[in-house]
Amino acid sequence: MRCKKCKQTACFQIRRHNAAFCEEHFVEHLQNQVVRAIKKFKMFPRSEKILLAVSGGKDSLALWDMLVDIGYSVDGLYIDLGIPDYSDVSGQKTRNFAEARGLVLHEVSLSRAYGVDIGHIARKNKKPPCSVCGVLKRYVMNTVAERHGYFAVATGHNLDDEAAVLMGNVLNWQTEYLQRQSPLLEAKPGMARKVKPLFRLAERETAAYCVLRGIDYIMHECPMSEDATSFTYKEVLNRLESESPGSKDHFLLGFLRTAPQLFPQDPDDGPDLQACTRCGQLTTTGECGFCRQMARAGLDSLALFHSDTPQERDQHN
Amino acid sequence: MRCKKCKQTACFQIRRHNAAFCEEHFVEHLQNQVVRAIKKFKMFPRSEKILLAVSGGKDSLALWDMLVDIGYSVDGLYIDLGIPDYSDVSGQKTRNFAEARGLVLHEVSLSRAYGVDIGHIARKNKKPPCSVCGVLKRYVMNTVAERHGYFAVATGHNLDDEAAVLMGNVLNWQTEYLQRQSPLLEAKPGMARKVKPLFRLAERETAAYCVLRGIDYIMHECPMSEDATSFTYKEVLNRLESESPGSKDHFLLGFLRTAPQLFPQDPDDGPDLQACTRCGQLTTTGECGFCRQMARAGLDSLALFHSDTPQERDQHN
Repeated sequence: MRCKKCKQTACFQIRRHNAAFCEEHFVEHLQNQVVRAIKKFKMFPRSEKILLAVSGGKDSLALWDMLVDIGYSVDGLYIDLGIPDYSDVSGQKTRNFAEARGLVLHEVSLSRAYGVDIGHIARKNKKPPCSVCGVLKRYVMNTVAERHGYFAVATGHNLDDEAAVLMGNVLNWQTEYLQRQSPLLEAKPGMARKVKPLFRLAERETAAYCVLRGIDYIMHECPMSEDATSFTYKEVLNRLESESPGSKDHFLLGFLRTAPQLFPQDPDDGPDLQACTRCGQLTTTGECGFCRQMARAGLDSLALFHSDTPQERDQHN
Repeated sequence: MRCKKCKQTACFQIRRHNAAFCEEHFVEHLQNQVVRAIKKFKMFPRSEKILLAVSGGKDSLALWDMLVDIGYSVDGLYIDLGIPDYSDVSGQKTRNFAEARGLVLHEVSLSRAYGVDIGHIARKNKKPPCSVCGVLKRYVMNTVAERHGYFAVATGHNLDDEAAVLMGNVLNWQTEYLQRQSPLLEAKPGMARKVKPLFRLAERETAAYCVLRGIDYIMHECPMSEDATSFTYKEVLNRLESESPGSKDHFLLGFLRTAPQLFPQDPDDGPDLQACTRCGQLTTTGECGFCRQMARAGLDSLALFHSDTPQERDQHN
């Protein structure tokens, strides 16, 4: 196999694009896909400093590396969920990445603020860890974005993630979720713009990117994650992809093309919002979901940001 | 396991309905599902004589048996495609079924009319056999229905078939096909009403029904069928079903509930139709697709019905 671009020996084949690339042009190809995603969905301009939620995994670190390499201005946000044998490692890898490149990293830590982990909050709420984790992450992303003046928060969701979510939404015909499934969710009061610049890249591509760029990432999946359904959707999509390369891409991109007609987002259709009586974040109820979740675990929601890293405290002043 | 109805030992479990049944109540349960499908979609009233396309396979013979047993009035239509080692057997099993029960069976035979098989027509048209077979079957169903005054033509498509088609349509976001995917397609000029009363039953259920009712059906798949894609969709749906019983049902029935809003059928949206210059069937072009297909194979489309069975000729007089 020869590189599509320079005709040197190729190191990586992308069957759905019917192309192979050498190391240099593989990296360039993936970065071009990200730029294409950003421009197509008008995610953010080159001049805007954005916030990227980083987990220490291959996707978010690859994305951070790509965006900075392309010339975007990106600060990181790491949320330490206090998961034993996992958060320490993922946090350290994230910090190492940021320090080696002189990048700004915000950190918010459950264990530093409360001395508890996400499992504790989940048990007290009698909910699956992934559910309480989602509420917490959204809250922290919006709050950090608001405090530090970021208009856009990026996440490292890739093609496999998005296609699996789409499969679940379609199998259950969840039209409300289908209306909201997009690589770009516009800002709403109290919520930053959310963007997913990696949605065109398969997870094996972001993994290969990390290897080629020497990025040290945490390989294990989160041990709290027991969402067997999403693994089944990914498995099923991999089966379809191996039968017919391009299936995932075709499924997700075809949806994104037709969704504005089939599942229109109505910007005026949101519920009335008011300030949370506790933290002030906008919410539909008296007290927001995050504050209620923390209260059920016997924790003061306002204390979370008291554990800001020194770097973050500096930026406050 | 005990029968849900009579508490005797159950012989068959339906995991997605969280129920098990003895032989008698399993048969009753399946028939009830068919009645429910017919009534829900207002497919045809008890008083109307309908035409059922029968292939000699488990689905169409089970459906014929069910409908007659419930008290519907159903004549059969068998199309002999002249497929070596297959059509002879499937035709004989269909004839045996009809004769043993004193049912009317219309037969239309490619080999009797032309001395050729469907493979010949496919090769001459440079198209896959399934494609030319589809055109032929639709033409024959509409023509026989019109000549003999049937308003509705039923087919034996089951839950697995319909869910697999839906999966393909969704993976490719084929909105036109999604608009037309329904267990009931209303009659249009030149086209009988099409109904699929088996869409609530899984294929293992129709197979079990045949065994319990002593129905001798052809077990082999059609040897011309090489549609690997539809097998992959069925395999993938079986994987989802085994992970979460009811997935197929939920996917298809959820679609049928939301489709009228998401994918509305526009009855006035059809193209202008005119009589085929050769056979008189309504078509969008000068000569209809069937006549063109036969002409490409050097065959006179009008000769197909000259091979009517004696029974069918009797009915003409």
